[in-house]
Amino acid sequence: MHYVDGLECSEFDREVFTELREGGLACVTVTCGYWGDALESMDSLAAWRQLEHDNADLIGIARTAADIEKIAADGRTAILLGFQNSAFLAGRIRFVELFADLGVRVAQLTYNIQNDIGASCYEDPDSGLTRFGRETVAEMNRVGMAIDLSHVGERTSIEAIEHSVKPVAVTHANAASLVPHRRNKSDDVLKGLAARGGVLGVSGYRNISGPYAESIDTWAEMVARTVDLIGIEHVGIGTDLGRKVTFEHLQWMRQGRWSAQPQYGAGSATNPGKQPPLPWFPDTRAFPAKEEALRRHGFDEPSVAAVMGGNWMRFYADVLPESGNEKPSREE
Amino acid sequence: MHYVDGLECSEFDREVFTELREGGLACVTVTCGYWGDALESMDSLAAWRQLEHDNADLIGIARTAADIEKIAADGRTAILLGFQNSAFLAGRIRFVELFADLGVRVAQLTYNIQNDIGASCYEDPDSGLTRFGRETVAEMNRVGMAIDLSHVGERTSIEAIEHSVKPVAVTHANAASLVPHRRNKSDDVLKGLAARGGVLGVSGYRNISGPYAESIDTWAEMVARTVDLIGIEHVGIGTDLGRKVTFEHLQWMRQGRWSAQPQYGAGSATNPGKQPPLPWFPDTRAFPAKEEALRRHGFDEPSVAAVMGGNWMRFYADVLPESGNEKPSREE
Repeated sequence: MHYVDGLECSEFDREVFTELREGGLACVTVTCGYWGDALESMDSLAAWRQLEHDNADLIGIARTAADIEKIAADGRTAILLGFQNSAFLAGRIRFVELFADLGVRVAQLTYNIQNDIGASCYEDPDSGLTRFGRETVAEMNRVGMAIDLSHVGERTSIEAIEHSVKPVAVTHANAASLVPHRRNKSDDVLKGLAARGGVLGVSGYRNISGPYAESIDTWAEMVARTVDLIGIEHVGIGTDLGRKVTFEHLQWMRQGRWSAQPQYGAGSATNPGKQPPLPWFPDTRAFPAKEEALRRHGFDEPSVAAVMGGNWMRFYADVLPESGNEKPSREE
Repeated sequence: MHYVDGLECSEFDREVFTELREGGLACVTVTCGYWGDALESMDSLAAWRQLEHDNADLIGIARTAADIEKIAADGRTAILLGFQNSAFLAGRIRFVELFADLGVRVAQLTYNIQNDIGASCYEDPDSGLTRFGRETVAEMNRVGMAIDLSHVGERTSIEAIEHSVKPVAVTHANAASLVPHRRNKSDDVLKGLAARGGVLGVSGYRNISGPYAESIDTWAEMVARTVDLIGIEHVGIGTDLGRKVTFEHLQWMRQGRWSAQPQYGAGSATNPGKQPPLPWFPDTRAFPAKEEALRRHGFDEPSVAAVMGGNWMRFYADVLPESGNEKPSREE
């Protein structure tokens, strides 16, 4: 069984990588940026190459599903490089291919605002997937960059699902019919995503999990209800874990550079702060407890394996390129 | 009487500046860019400082309405620095003030696509003015940057007019009720703009002027009908003149970097090329002929003066800052 976390926003360092290993993670998608333009995003990718170099005993950056298998077989954690916004494209359609060459494998179409691709879940009205957005989705399909709709608005999400010829993901959100919140996804979106082979990463993030964040067993209950809604093949885990994320990091995610007014993201003026860690999931070392909770909740063995990582592995095999560009080895 | 051209997209050099002088232009808003990000837009502004330095006998960059008067009184043409897209902001709300400090005085909210501020006239559906868009409009109001809605979509235009506390402009378009074309403006938009003290720059650009592009007298007829529609105080000239604009420049305007598919802007697949110059308006030396045509068409003297430039001068006095930042003089 592979453990996969569909999305983390942690500030990674050797300690956090060690936690990934202690939790037995085969693969995690990391957040390389939110608001950075193309050059800033390249800085972030360059920093990840240094992190990989310095922690090669613990992690490896994966470019293909086969890479994930190989890295996991080594006893290391495969890192998929992702962005929670498509600002890295800086509006250039040809940059989809360039950033894929640089190893980017997961891209959320927008983060919290309307952009040139489409609308976020916080924007009203929702432009839908724009002309540039449709070309971007097609390019992401072509180059093997997974499309993430987590913070994306309703109409844009539905149109992206329809326009994409590959399955798409919601890496970190919950069903809005279970926990009403703008960040969560309507049954229409989730059923459309499932019908096309996509995967939802169920989160435990307090602001979007409501009462299901209370314990590992309420979380397992949310997973079970989500499976009832869209089927066992389409539910995975996307913790949205933010290890070592400070209030300043959170402010940057929410505020970016687009607004001079206070912005609260999934929080609110009365709930502006960083959420305390979940006692039952302080970091990825608690992944095995999720497996046990699912089993305790009545999931059979194939279902436990599907949720813990199998569905993500199938999704990556469907979507990522078959062969990655060779990264030149670094001379010492 | 001041002659003012509300928008040109010419590739300016000493020859084109000389034409401005021979045409007797008091002021022209130039296009510093379409798709450039913040740094590229600074390059363009830097190039304009060099152009001003090299042609100081013919032109001067104006930062205030008083600057325009002073430069015109010198027998030179005042240049207002404008962008036909707000890509120069690169999504940063604080950059409105920074680019105003650098002398930018006219900003179109978007050019031909949906962006983070709102929709263009070619996008369907139209997001309306986004949250970032509303903050941007308020900032442009505050710092004295004129808001241009020429290529902007219907809903976004109406919301920008409503949200702006200052008059706004359509620097270069026509009334869609006279010439049906996506680039032209509905009566709703034009009447809303006029009700708030804004100005429309009537264009003669072939693709959006239909039969009114035939002669200087049909053009004067279009001006008269536009005046009937929104009132004499709200009609000016915005030639959209593209002196020395080549097909390659046109391709860049239309294509930018957002699409890998052929894009035709105000043209079409069957009409993809650069439009030939108007025989009755090959360049700005023909401005006095417009004055004569208006008079011939029955406009009285105050009305001729209002259309030829008076309305733009009032608009600039309403919208531009009262005092400009001092530009350090350049040492020889």
